[in-house]
Amino acid sequence: MKKVAVLLSGAGAYDGAEINEAVLTLLHIEKKGASYECFAPNITQMHHINHLSGETTSETRNVLQESARIVRGNAKPLSELNEAEFDALIVPGGYGVAKNFCDFAVKGADMQVNPEVLAACKAFASAFKPTGYICIAPVLLPHVYGKGVRATIGNDPEVASAFTSMGGEHVECEVDDIVVCNTHKVASTPAYMLATSISEAESGIKKLVAHVLSGA
Amino acid sequence: MKKVAVLLSGAGAYDGAEINEAVLTLLHIEKKGASYECFAPNITQMHHINHLSGETTSETRNVLQESARIVRGNAKPLSELNEAEFDALIVPGGYGVAKNFCDFAVKGADMQVNPEVLAACKAFASAFKPTGYICIAPVLLPHVYGKGVRATIGNDPEVASAFTSMGGEHVECEVDDIVVCNTHKVASTPAYMLATSISEAESGIKKLVAHVLSGA
Repeated sequence: MKKVAVLLSGAGAYDGAEINEAVLTLLHIEKKGASYECFAPNITQMHHINHLSGETTSETRNVLQESARIVRGNAKPLSELNEAEFDALIVPGGYGVAKNFCDFAVKGADMQVNPEVLAACKAFASAFKPTGYICIAPVLLPHVYGKGVRATIGNDPEVASAFTSMGGEHVECEVDDIVVCNTHKVASTPAYMLATSISEAESGIKKLVAHVLSGA
Repeated sequence: MKKVAVLLSGAGAYDGAEINEAVLTLLHIEKKGASYECFAPNITQMHHINHLSGETTSETRNVLQESARIVRGNAKPLSELNEAEFDALIVPGGYGVAKNFCDFAVKGADMQVNPEVLAACKAFASAFKPTGYICIAPVLLPHVYGKGVRATIGNDPEVASAFTSMGGEHVECEVDDIVVCNTHKVASTPAYMLATSISEAESGIKKLVAHVLSGA
């Protein structure tokens, strides 16, 4: 059975992993007959947002503990991720990627990636194992794969321009489709960068998971 | 287009709504061509559990704010739920139902239901509109519909016995199936009372949503 490592960045679209994207990713991994384990860095979130009001509060939350909410406690510290035990990697989106995995939300194209997250992603890159990056997660790709990596990150001109200036090749893509970079075996899909409903997000995620697993 | 009210009890299996059940419910409502709105009571959670360690902490969280994480902020206070605007009601499970919607987790068969939650559920009962209760959520049914209401609440003998002593008629049910109480138009499915995987939970939830909508 093929085994996929899934990286979670919290639990909640505005300060963590996009919950729908995460659940749909896990669902479709299982539906394709593969299994998964979820990992998250054991770090404090950049901040906490009240998802009802949209306001930032003074509360502090831990990325690993919040990620564990999505998977009934079954999340592991990213420090325990050993690429050799997995056939593929998938990174769902949500602001958690742009706030906890890197500082894109604050620094834009001058962003840095959390060293542990970068090392994990690079391990799969070096092993030439297939990976999937959903929604805003492709923002990590120029740091992971270097110049020329091909991906979609939605149609927002500012985000696409930052991606390009970091060395990525941006490709516009419909919500129900994926972009594949064959050089690096990386698939990406816009999900909630474009989706206006959960079934729209599902259409692209389903395709991405199937593509990643077909190359694993 | 049929419209379903979905009641959320937080975000996280151990102190809130079971996230996978909630997302799968919303997904299948959409896939059946219906729409949804999510509601939650604007109250403090019974407690907060670190989902990684399983430990209770001193942190306080709000049921409505946490529920909003599942739906990108689009949750409404339960006080705004007007049954007349909806064709059906679905209540996903998670300990949030047994801790925030009622005190079953503490009091067992002597439980009381939060008055606002009870009034909302009873409004759909009085209007004879179809409803679906997932996982542990059927524990509310004897208070909503009175003696003789028929449902499944998983195969745990203690939970089933409490359900029976409150006046419910408990029916054992496979994870991929539903139990229907035709007298009250109530469907129930065990989901994570039995499920060992997200696709197992999905199988019953998909069937429950289809049944509820077929009667709406």
